[in-house]
Amino acid sequence: MLDIAIVGKGPAGWSCAMTARMRGLQAVVIAPQNDNGLLRSAERIDNYPGMPQASGNAILDAFREQALAMGAQERSGLVRQIMPMGESFMLLVENDVLEAKAVVLAMGAARPVLLPGEEEQLGRGVSYCATCDGMFYRGKRIAVLSASQQGVEETRFLAGLASEVDYYSLKRHQTDGLEENVKVMAEKPVSIGRDDAGLILMTDQAVHGYDGIFVFRAAMPLNMLMAELETEGSYIPVDRQMRTNIPGVFAAGDCTGKPLQVPKAVGEGNVAALSAAAWIAGRDNAG
Amino acid sequence: MLDIAIVGKGPAGWSCAMTARMRGLQAVVIAPQNDNGLLRSAERIDNYPGMPQASGNAILDAFREQALAMGAQERSGLVRQIMPMGESFMLLVENDVLEAKAVVLAMGAARPVLLPGEEEQLGRGVSYCATCDGMFYRGKRIAVLSASQQGVEETRFLAGLASEVDYYSLKRHQTDGLEENVKVMAEKPVSIGRDDAGLILMTDQAVHGYDGIFVFRAAMPLNMLMAELETEGSYIPVDRQMRTNIPGVFAAGDCTGKPLQVPKAVGEGNVAALSAAAWIAGRDNAG
Repeated sequence: MLDIAIVGKGPAGWSCAMTARMRGLQAVVIAPQNDNGLLRSAERIDNYPGMPQASGNAILDAFREQALAMGAQERSGLVRQIMPMGESFMLLVENDVLEAKAVVLAMGAARPVLLPGEEEQLGRGVSYCATCDGMFYRGKRIAVLSASQQGVEETRFLAGLASEVDYYSLKRHQTDGLEENVKVMAEKPVSIGRDDAGLILMTDQAVHGYDGIFVFRAAMPLNMLMAELETEGSYIPVDRQMRTNIPGVFAAGDCTGKPLQVPKAVGEGNVAALSAAAWIAGRDNAG
Repeated sequence: MLDIAIVGKGPAGWSCAMTARMRGLQAVVIAPQNDNGLLRSAERIDNYPGMPQASGNAILDAFREQALAMGAQERSGLVRQIMPMGESFMLLVENDVLEAKAVVLAMGAARPVLLPGEEEQLGRGVSYCATCDGMFYRGKRIAVLSASQQGVEETRFLAGLASEVDYYSLKRHQTDGLEENVKVMAEKPVSIGRDDAGLILMTDQAVHGYDGIFVFRAAMPLNMLMAELETEGSYIPVDRQMRTNIPGVFAAGDCTGKPLQVPKAVGEGNVAALSAAAWIAGRDNAG
């Protein structure tokens, strides 16, 4: 079992990992490969003490390198769900399950807005995981709805199974390198539904029927990530120890609310790590 | 009038100054010359993101340089008292008065323990300020009680006025370079009192009479710094916006409580600056 699972590889996540390592704890930083969109595009950040006028890229790369050098582990993949299991937490990372003593949520401020009907059809033809569910669509017609280039990678895999794939961009991104049986669509997805023949995708121009619809985004809606988690709008309320309403689950950085700033995220990651360390110590002593 | 007066030149103070400057506000960092004792002596800090394995000195120097390059101002001197004056705050810095729209307290965790009787005799022969009160002791016998080398500087000035000076160390420090009429005492001060002839200093070995007693420490007790300020033990309680109980007064870093960590202090300084900026904007719009 892991000590601390850290969801998100921004400044809060890496700062949390460093302090966890300093306290001798295992720390695994989990996030999709192509993440940190907004900070990666920041050309210059003036107010992070110690790295004057650094770019967002330089900050993220320096933090990551420092945390890995201290023994933090990194794992690529979207955390799809977190389940409290009494004494520990199970994390569904793509198609794998990790178990951790404590969880620190540090996945940034970006919260996806689902399409109407998407949540209702999830598990009934709508899937967020190509490796989990791709096999069900061998020889079938599917749609991919993707918010980033990550969807291109997933679609390469799906195109080897499905007979036809329609690729829709939820946000503008590069779609080079897709297989011949993939058609890049210019239409904008509007809603998902179902009729007698199967799934329906309504776009701004037409209605299409599919056997399956895969949706790829860099983040999960909070209520789907962890049903028990209290939220305030799109943020996770925390106290000064960075505790959420769930014992053993802490949050840090932009996901806890404004200001959305690198120094604030770094400080909150630091505090969350120490609160998680204290929580793990109490848990291990009690057991 | 200044925008933000920042009391303390540790990580929280410099981080606050940087973010204040980024928001186009004046920021003056005020602290005694010889400060940051504990962090200055830290040989290696592992968990400050962006400066792997840096010493406390390297961190403090880098932060200061970055903040000054951004236009923050620095002022040497102990802030002895802060008075809310309706729309602004008056700060007594040694013998000078500064006026600021907002105040950020960032003076670290070190809270001085006063000697028994010290507070009662303050202003009645006991003084914290050589430049303010030195003139009253021309040709008289005085004692200096000092917690740091800063006291040596002050005593050089006092020795030119007083006839005799007894120098007591409250904490071990270098006392080289004192004038001929200064006697460095080995005794430890225990309490301050008064009899018919004047002030009395009781030490671990004897009782001495003086016309005046000067006490030099790097920090003020919170209740003397700002009578209205709510405290919890030796810490200043704050909310997630780093607000104290006094509107326009914010706190950041070690003085707000544990964990006493550089990343936490940096994050809190960042948030305090933005909260102070919002407070100033509201104040200026109302006026």
